Amino acid sequence: MTDATKTARRSIWAWGNESDEPTEAERRAEADRLSALSGRPVEAKPLPTTGSIALRPPRVRVPAALAPFCHSDDYHRASRTYGRSFVDRVRAVNGDYAHPPDVVARPREEDEVRAVLEWCSDAGHVVIPFGGGSSVVDGVNPPAAADSVVTLDLGEMNEVLTVDTTSRAARIQAGALGPHLEAQLKPHGLTLRHFPQSFEHSSLGGWIATRSGGHYATNHTHIDEFVESLRMLTPAGVMESRRLPGSGAGPSPDRLAIGSEGALGVITEAWMRLQKRPQYRASAGVTFGSWEAAYRGVLQVVQAKLWPANLRLLDPLEAQTAAGLDGSRALMVVGFESGDAPVGGLMRQAIAIAREAGGAVDDEEILIDDGGGAPTGREGAVGTWRKSFITGPYDANRRMGLGLVADTFETAITWDRWPAFDAAIREAVGRVLDETLDAPTLSCRFTHVYPDGPAPYYTFSGIGRQGAEIEQFHAIKRAASEAVIAAGGTITHHHAVGRQHRPWYDQQRPELFASALRAAKRELDPNGVMNPGVLIDP
Amino acid sequence: MTDATKTARRSIWAWGNESDEPTEAERRAEADRLSALSGRPVEAKPLPTTGSIALRPPRVRVPAALAPFCHSDDYHRASRTYGRSFVDRVRAVNGDYAHPPDVVARPREEDEVRAVLEWCSDAGHVVIPFGGGSSVVDGVNPPAAADSVVTLDLGEMNEVLTVDTTSRAARIQAGALGPHLEAQLKPHGLTLRHFPQSFEHSSLGGWIATRSGGHYATNHTHIDEFVESLRMLTPAGVMESRRLPGSGAGPSPDRLAIGSEGALGVITEAWMRLQKRPQYRASAGVTFGSWEAAYRGVLQVVQAKLWPANLRLLDPLEAQTAAGLDGSRALMVVGFESGDAPVGGLMRQAIAIAREAGGAVDDEEILIDDGGGAPTGREGAVGTWRKSFITGPYDANRRMGLGLVADTFETAITWDRWPAFDAAIREAVGRVLDETLDAPTLSCRFTHVYPDGPAPYYTFSGIGRQGAEIEQFHAIKRAASEAVIAAGGTITHHHAVGRQHRPWYDQQRPELFASALRAAKRELDPNGVMNPGVLIDP
Repeated sequence: MTDATKTARRSIWAWGNESDEPTEAERRAEADRLSALSGRPVEAKPLPTTGSIALRPPRVRVPAALAPFCHSDDYHRASRTYGRSFVDRVRAVNGDYAHPPDVVARPREEDEVRAVLEWCSDAGHVVIPFGGGSSVVDGVNPPAAADSVVTLDLGEMNEVLTVDTTSRAARIQAGALGPHLEAQLKPHGLTLRHFPQSFEHSSLGGWIATRSGGHYATNHTHIDEFVESLRMLTPAGVMESRRLPGSGAGPSPDRLAIGSEGALGVITEAWMRLQKRPQYRASAGVTFGSWEAAYRGVLQVVQAKLWPANLRLLDPLEAQTAAGLDGSRALMVVGFESGDAPVGGLMRQAIAIAREAGGAVDDEEILIDDGGGAPTGREGAVGTWRKSFITGPYDANRRMGLGLVADTFETAITWDRWPAFDAAIREAVGRVLDETLDAPTLSCRFTHVYPDGPAPYYTFSGIGRQGAEIEQFHAIKRAASEAVIAAGGTITHHHAVGRQHRPWYDQQRPELFASALRAAKRELDPNGVMNPGVLIDP
Repeated sequence: MTDATKTARRSIWAWGNESDEPTEAERRAEADRLSALSGRPVEAKPLPTTGSIALRPPRVRVPAALAPFCHSDDYHRASRTYGRSFVDRVRAVNGDYAHPPDVVARPREEDEVRAVLEWCSDAGHVVIPFGGGSSVVDGVNPPAAADSVVTLDLGEMNEVLTVDTTSRAARIQAGALGPHLEAQLKPHGLTLRHFPQSFEHSSLGGWIATRSGGHYATNHTHIDEFVESLRMLTPAGVMESRRLPGSGAGPSPDRLAIGSEGALGVITEAWMRLQKRPQYRASAGVTFGSWEAAYRGVLQVVQAKLWPANLRLLDPLEAQTAAGLDGSRALMVVGFESGDAPVGGLMRQAIAIAREAGGAVDDEEILIDDGGGAPTGREGAVGTWRKSFITGPYDANRRMGLGLVADTFETAITWDRWPAFDAAIREAVGRVLDETLDAPTLSCRFTHVYPDGPAPYYTFSGIGRQGAEIEQFHAIKRAASEAVIAAGGTITHHHAVGRQHRPWYDQQRPELFASALRAAKRELDPNGVMNPGVLIDP
């Protein structure tokens, strides 16, 4: 799939880099396949390039002092026009670049960030903090109504600045993307181990600003727990917290910045808690005869607080499509890992609980590496699922804009309400899918699990009408979001609010908290230039 | 020590209830002992009673509608004049009740709380939310400068309202004190397991408002982690968060209320995450030949992330005075517990790491209860320490105001800075102790430990001058606080900020965060009546 003539630059439309874009021939083949499947004509229009799309002229003149790191060329502006939501991807592949930023600033040091914020706050230009650009919630898109937009791309500030091997922590610049961040930690025997699906194309600052959910399926699930301190530049100045392993001194300053989605300022660096690279691992896939039996089993395992690194659950459909099972059984993936102590004992305890709850796994499929390097977790159903998790967003590049409508949404709910919640979601979303798409599917997995409830992640897809995908998507997304909020869930467990989730977030968060947040924003961003429209209106 | 004629009412001056007050004879005996020890006369003045102290008349007239639950009698006002800091206790035992609240409101339901807030906000009366009254940081004291003060005692709202055994959570009213809260959970086989030293005399709402540190020495150390959702009444209305096991929807509303110390509103109830009552336990005391070897051993154990429920470390002096060791060795107390799975395997792993780091423990002193009820943790050095931890504050009732100066302060610091930090604290505090007190002692233990650093808790005591204890205390406290902040620590790990820690908190928290918090306060408490002076000034 990789074309050697293409570069490692971010694609203006596809998930990943230009080298991840499919060929026109691949697109045509996919169009033909979908046309045959749907019985309707499907056209593979030419893929967008900076040469083929027409961007409006920049509406902003960059001050001379900032010119060395500010860009208004078509490539910079087109490649920062969108995040990677379904709507973004359809618009982009169709060549709709109606609202690009006017300028892409790529500061190389904090003084340059400060200069951009001062300029924009004074001149009233909207500032969009931008890390890897993988937002799926309309979090990095220039608002259509804005008169002038400067996208502040932190990508040049990507260094691990200090490593404290004693405390297992490091000071890291916010623009570091996952692989580059991990590559810098590796020589120290340390790892952040924050592996969202977007890992290759998302940044530390983005993870913190959006409360990203990561590698660990239990216990410390969000990036929140790994922030030791952080530094955020705002139009009103710097907000930097003290580096501490724990504190009880008033409401946590970090927790105001964590999840602020660029609306209060731009995170420039953070001290992050790290892990020793794992050398002990254990992994197993446990199957259950029904979805109900499976989630009751997961409840038993998570409430024992053995804190497995991995504890994912795939419903029978998802276990079939993503992990190669036969469609009749659900799959629990359970794994432990440690850099310091063997995990076989914990694994045996978890398996005993899962079996007691009706789970099936052969002894020889419980893979335990007690430090010798035995393979774990990359074979069988577990390995198949892992592979499809990583390649999924790339695979969609071939199909985007050819009439398929597919996306995911995620939430969290307490166990007592879970069975009714799941039924309500499947009913409401199932109905809108039936009304909207041909051959629709809806499946569920748990991405993270808590002693008091799961974080379910629903995936839907079906054959829509080419050209109407966005409208069809919105009908489904609206029904799903309404059902999630009505049934007591959160509008997002780890994808952030952005602009896409605003109507439902506004119902979810306490009104007085929104007042407090708006008041805080007026202090930190008095002219209201920071990412307007995410989380709150001024 | 218990006098049957005395009641279970809160003492107006002593730690605990009236039944915990010493007799005049016990006080005289203690005065004689301290006089002999110091070579100075020590007088056991008569203990204060509501009959012996002169309170200023109430300056507030209670509206008739609120009269049924508002009290202005001497007992109510005297017993809510102070928290239980060293300064509070000395003032109280000396009969100094210069600044009592004018009214003690004891609402029985939320509508009555709302009525008090409306009344006070409109009339400009200061409101002091009050749970168990155990604050050691001047968090519940009527400010001397206030013209009128209503203390809002939540004690009548103390019920567990709903228990969700499936999710292991309960909705609990904020006024519930520790023992009453646990007694209501016990029939359900559940427990909050939040056991600060103040457990008997502190409330759920107080724990949340002050970010109390609890039972668990690792992983989930603060009450913060156990809050599933909460409800806070403010002069501007109700702020209630959605009950969720996890969320990534914007900055956490709960984290604004958690640690707000009554300055934004009064927490009336919360959904709390609970534990199944433990049936598997393991406990051991491991000794080390030096403080340095001991804390290096703790670092090794905590970084293995086995997440022991207990992982405390006593320096050689504290191991001697509180756990009966010989003064040459430090003591690590390590314990595991679970309601669901045996913990012997984890214990053996922790012990192996501690021994590898130079720790000594006999095999037969590693106590493991795999569900059969074998005794763990209440014998030997571990049991001795546990007993002195619980009785300590009561024992001090006999000595308070007789010339002794003794207190504790606590903080947290990352491991890389810890040895220099400890040296700096011991140097600075040792010097001021030598200058201020006779026969001073200074010792340290870790109350909570994180993979990236310990939470050290320093205890000092010595013989001061009767009548000058408060001034002497302030000299020591000031030197300790300055040293903590200068060396990079937090002014409090789990005792809160209150008014006592304000000068150093003001140096610690980011200035822009204080601006944001003040702005939030203006929204929630527009007339600035809520507990003024804690955390921030208006």
